[in-house]
Amino acid sequence: MKLIEMNQAAARGLKDQNLTALLPLGAVEVHGDHLPIGTDLFLAQALTDKLEEKMGKENALVLPALPYGQVWSLREAPGSVNISNEILSGMIAQIGKSLEKAGIRRMAIVNTHVGNGDAMKMASRMLYDTSDIKVYLFTYPGAEEVIPKVCESPMPHKGYFHACEIETSYMLYLCPEWVDQSKAICQYPDFPEDFDYTPTPWTDFMATAVLGDAVSATKEKGEAIIERVVERMCEILGKEAIR
Amino acid sequence: MKLIEMNQAAARGLKDQNLTALLPLGAVEVHGDHLPIGTDLFLAQALTDKLEEKMGKENALVLPALPYGQVWSLREAPGSVNISNEILSGMIAQIGKSLEKAGIRRMAIVNTHVGNGDAMKMASRMLYDTSDIKVYLFTYPGAEEVIPKVCESPMPHKGYFHACEIETSYMLYLCPEWVDQSKAICQYPDFPEDFDYTPTPWTDFMATAVLGDAVSATKEKGEAIIERVVERMCEILGKEAIR
Amino acid sequence: MKLIEMNQAAARGLKDQNLTALLPLGAVEVHGDHLPIGTDLFLAQALTDKLEEKMGKENALVLPALPYGQVWSLREAPGSVNISNEILSGMIAQIGKSLEKAGIRRMAIVNTHVGNGDAMKMASRMLYDTSDIKVYLFTYPGAEEVIPKVCESPMPHKGYFHACEIETSYMLYLCPEWVDQSKAICQYPDFPEDFDYTPTPWTDFMATAVLGDAVSATKEKGEAIIERVVERMCEILGKEAIR
Amino acid sequence: MKLIEMNQAAARGLKDQNLTALLPLGAVEVHGDHLPIGTDLFLAQALTDKLEEKMGKENALVLPALPYGQVWSLREAPGSVNISNEILSGMIAQIGKSLEKAGIRRMAIVNTHVGNGDAMKMASRMLYDTSDIKVYLFTYPGAEEVIPKVCESPMPHKGYFHACEIETSYMLYLCPEWVDQSKAICQYPDFPEDFDYTPTPWTDFMATAVLGDAVSATKEKGEAIIERVVERMCEILGKEAIR
Amino acid sequence: MKLIEMNQAAARGLKDQNLTALLPLGAVEVHGDHLPIGTDLFLAQALTDKLEEKMGKENALVLPALPYGQVWSLREAPGSVNISNEILSGMIAQIGKSLEKAGIRRMAIVNTHVGNGDAMKMASRMLYDTSDIKVYLFTYPGAEEVIPKVCESPMPHKGYFHACEIETSYMLYLCPEWVDQSKAICQYPDFPEDFDYTPTPWTDFMATAVLGDAVSATKEKGEAIIERVVERMCEILGKEAIR
Amino acid sequence: MKLIEMNQAAARGLKDQNLTALLPLGAVEVHGDHLPIGTDLFLAQALTDKLEEKMGKENALVLPALPYGQVWSLREAPGSVNISNEILSGMIAQIGKSLEKAGIRRMAIVNTHVGNGDAMKMASRMLYDTSDIKVYLFTYPGAEEVIPKVCESPMPHKGYFHACEIETSYMLYLCPEWVDQSKAICQYPDFPEDFDYTPTPWTDFMATAVLGDAVSATKEKGEAIIERVVERMCEILGKEAIR
Repeated sequence: MKLIEMNQAAARGLKDQNLTALLPLGAVEVHGDHLPIGTDLFLAQALTDKLEEKMGKENALVLPALPYGQVWSLREAPGSVNISNEILSGMIAQIGKSLEKAGIRRMAIVNTHVGNGDAMKMASRMLYDTSDIKVYLFTYPGAEEVIPKVCESPMPHKGYFHACEIETSYMLYLCPEWVDQSKAICQYPDFPEDFDYTPTPWTDFMATAVLGDAVSATKEKGEAIIERVVERMCEILGKEAIR
Repeated sequence: MKLIEMNQAAARGLKDQNLTALLPLGAVEVHGDHLPIGTDLFLAQALTDKLEEKMGKENALVLPALPYGQVWSLREAPGSVNISNEILSGMIAQIGKSLEKAGIRRMAIVNTHVGNGDAMKMASRMLYDTSDIKVYLFTYPGAEEVIPKVCESPMPHKGYFHACEIETSYMLYLCPEWVDQSKAICQYPDFPEDFDYTPTPWTDFMATAVLGDAVSATKEKGEAIIERVVERMCEILGKEAIR
Repeated sequence: MKLIEMNQAAARGLKDQNLTALLPLGAVEVHGDHLPIGTDLFLAQALTDKLEEKMGKENALVLPALPYGQVWSLREAPGSVNISNEILSGMIAQIGKSLEKAGIRRMAIVNTHVGNGDAMKMASRMLYDTSDIKVYLFTYPGAEEVIPKVCESPMPHKGYFHACEIETSYMLYLCPEWVDQSKAICQYPDFPEDFDYTPTPWTDFMATAVLGDAVSATKEKGEAIIERVVERMCEILGKEAIR
Repeated sequence: MKLIEMNQAAARGLKDQNLTALLPLGAVEVHGDHLPIGTDLFLAQALTDKLEEKMGKENALVLPALPYGQVWSLREAPGSVNISNEILSGMIAQIGKSLEKAGIRRMAIVNTHVGNGDAMKMASRMLYDTSDIKVYLFTYPGAEEVIPKVCESPMPHKGYFHACEIETSYMLYLCPEWVDQSKAICQYPDFPEDFDYTPTPWTDFMATAVLGDAVSATKEKGEAIIERVVERMCEILGKEAIR
Repeated sequence: MKLIEMNQAAARGLKDQNLTALLPLGAVEVHGDHLPIGTDLFLAQALTDKLEEKMGKENALVLPALPYGQVWSLREAPGSVNISNEILSGMIAQIGKSLEKAGIRRMAIVNTHVGNGDAMKMASRMLYDTSDIKVYLFTYPGAEEVIPKVCESPMPHKGYFHACEIETSYMLYLCPEWVDQSKAICQYPDFPEDFDYTPTPWTDFMATAVLGDAVSATKEKGEAIIERVVERMCEILGKEAIR
Repeated sequence: MKLIEMNQAAARGLKDQNLTALLPLGAVEVHGDHLPIGTDLFLAQALTDKLEEKMGKENALVLPALPYGQVWSLREAPGSVNISNEILSGMIAQIGKSLEKAGIRRMAIVNTHVGNGDAMKMASRMLYDTSDIKVYLFTYPGAEEVIPKVCESPMPHKGYFHACEIETSYMLYLCPEWVDQSKAICQYPDFPEDFDYTPTPWTDFMATAVLGDAVSATKEKGEAIIERVVERMCEILGKEAIR
């Protein structure tokens, strides 16, 4: 069920349905030339739809996607929109508080942008202290099981990747109409020595926002990972949420 | 042009194109049983698309809609999501700051929810003081010229209407697929005597969130008003913005 | 009763008297050359005194006036003092919280400056959520009924007027000693095309802060409007407040 | 010169006159039964008028008094109004920022309530860092020289006194119309042992807010102290301010 | 007992022991050339140890010292570290809140730096309103009784002294290993006329941060004062705390 | 060099010495019964001393340790002290700002508590935007290379460990006097299924705060890891910092 498609009578009944609210959370951020700026937003919406289908529509309440995220690392690149952790977490927490008034007791944030992690955590802890909503934080859970099996290119960095084999494969599977694979590049930038230990905008060391090998992306790789992610999210939500 | 559909190369060129960014701003709020909870969001997106077309796509940069707004008056109704002025204005202002980095100098907020007015003003003043972005605040400008000519039902209140002849007509024109006119009602609630002068949740005096006569809404009325609104927004933006 | 004139014994008895606290709220803002910078403050105090008298002194608790308000539009004019919405609303809300400790359950803000509207609303909503004080927001209620009948000059703008026929008439009736009518001017500035839609300091388009025709002001016009405003405030407060 | 009595033309000339702005700062706080709740406000206004006269009106710009102060210690007493340091200091600092726009370079806070000290310091440091206004903090400077000479009753506490011989004498000299000396009492409460070292509302140990011997107050004592205070404030402002 | 030396089992038992937590609070601030930058920190720790011993270890729970304080007056001197009142008070208050969870009901801040006074007060009032912890604020209580008896040099200022006879004597008694008395100086700077009444960094009028006569300091003077301070702190805490 | 041991003359010379400031950052948190509550603080100080020695004392400026950290996960356990990210990051950033005044251009945070990570990042980004200080964030860098080689017990969780083989080994190497190995336990709690995805206090699933096998800890393991960590920190700081 999509919240924004419901009428007031239906909304009144939400409290009796044991629903898990799903909040797609993306970002507006440059992703090189083969992927659009809205990549994370498109992925968040498509992934949420997959999850809703898997859970069963009678178990899920899909919220409208929050398109804007925290993109500190690429904030200097024209086209990126950067929201502070304070504002982003505040909005997420207030969404949760309103859902509580509707009788919802579970909210999963279906996030596709690593940079949103801190704000999500802040919001979830605010809600932990001030509401009865249980918040799940999902950023592709389970992907780490499948990626080593299906991906061929080396990881560009132990903690980060971007617009690369992985993320492009997601797009080829979930939103192929937004990929121009003819412009895909393979880029392994030289990270500054101290990159992991001091704030470093990515624009300091690469002009095009691609971290890894986008050329080797395929729809099949995307499918393999995403299907496991969707399954994993259902496992985590568990039987209480998905009946 | 839609920002989220652009790639990085295109985004780099934004600074040379004299564009006006358009930010659709809606709300998640109950609108009775004949209109969906996402009414304001659907309207904001559709109205922005109309405006983009009228301006000429080469003059406009459409941003992803911000779905969540300030809905204090109906915050107690299950299904509504209420964001504080502080958080909402902060997010709008930060969007503006990021656009400035891309070389954008004009942003119009295409808003469809009256309750967002204070937050929009706060954001616009923050940006006035801290950026070179000129912000336009649009909440159906020009509608006031046409409404008295085409609408038949009396206004329920001098300052407020909701899910009524006017708003339902907008929906019938812009998003008819989301209207179930068979459930439209005509409701003129008894406002408390001091309603205009003291904070009063609308849920205090009506169970279904309809202020006015939704039954008399028609697509034609919506068209007459909306077309003038689109025209009026273009007039306000002026020749500098629309060449 | 004036709060600041009471002693501690009298204050202890406040809780048993079903009083409405009246907070005069003005601004320090230039009003051209025929009216003083303290115009809004003088008016707020005089209007509150009228209201107190009409209500009956046994029903009202007059607070000391808060002289400083939000004057964004004229903040650049030497002599204006501009307080942010955040600080102004915070002070009003804290006044309300303290009154609650004294057993007061009703506070009316008698405001004479349109720019204070947002801060007043913020304060009233804070108190709605955190206290048992009911807050009334009064900015010349009822004036809109009389103005079209007694005023002769056209309105300079649909939403704003300043130091004009209306406000000067108020002063001629309530505080004639502060008016130098020989310096009154009639000024209809050319508003920028987009004035209503983008933040625009008034100092951008007029050197002297007069919006309208101050020359046509008379004491009689002021009397007609103000007497209705006072009456209207009593009607709104209602029988529970005025016994 | 009183700011609120000036017109806009006069305000424009403020920048050329080397003026010191005087901000009377009081509090709304119970002062027993012989003094009114507005004692600190009345004193702040009267003291400022004395100072203006002594400085020469051509050297001073008197601002409207800020009536509300920080009254933590007596906040539980009905009739007291307590403003937080954050809000109070914010308002004072914003007043200073606006004066800077008018070309004022010196502001003296003429304070009569010890509890306002922290907020005044906070405001003055904010302005030190963000403006060119020099702020003077006056809470009866020089009084400490005269008090031991003219007062007869022992101090109730090394750091605090309230509505006592000293303050009542001030009132008898400056605002005798507000004193009902027939209700004056002499009260030396038993302070809790740890009073100086832990937050302790005064209402914990006395029902009537009098700390000291109000009975022994006289107009002559008040005159002796206040005249020295006025003189001392002029000395501190110095020749640059008073020509 | 030192909190950081305890294990979890011991911490579980804290709630049953009627303990007073002692928080040493210092500052990082230049103290001329004969005393180290950590003077206030060393003193806070040593003084707390003395107090713990006097109270009896079974009555005290010593917390790790907070080394950083508010040093506005010397913030411009290289080597000083200045923490804002807002951050410092927030940390102290949050320490108190956590102690409350461990069952502690009394916390004494053993402070050695006058500049921390406002933040301490803010923290203690926050805890007064939001916890059951009783907070004691100690900045050398009782010292004022002994100083006039044992010190020989005149006070440099009625309210301030720094790295002088008094403070150097404290160090000679408590931490002699950190004193290089061969570099002690006697310095009575010319305070600006308006020093007491307007924000004035000490670096404006003295290059070396010594206010008073460090040469006349002795261990014996330090001992006399400190022993009384320790005794006085015990008196204030009283029999309930020290059994 | 320890900042708190320097005198003012030495501090004045800091700006000419190309120093890296080292800020030890710990936490006050229960660590089972074999390790003390101050474990993280003891480790931060000892590790910083090792680093200072390795860098050469002429290259390092050791700051006093900040003992209090963010311990959300164990905040409910008596003895833990939990500081919010907002306050902790604010204090770190303000320390950096003051060091900038002394001419320092590099600050390394030597952190031993994973929970401090978010606050450290927030502080480093604040300083990135508002100062010329380059901030390094160190939480045992390089440990991940050695742990798999020397540790024998399985990791209790992919992202967390606590008071276990690893941390106890650190203590046995760096601060053996604070370890009571006779009380070491081996504990692999059953994490809730959704532990990684929703805020979960550790006290929900274990009574004694040990995550892993403390019994298998040895001084040699600690030495192997810590020596690499120290070496790695030097590599990251690089030749510009260590000459």
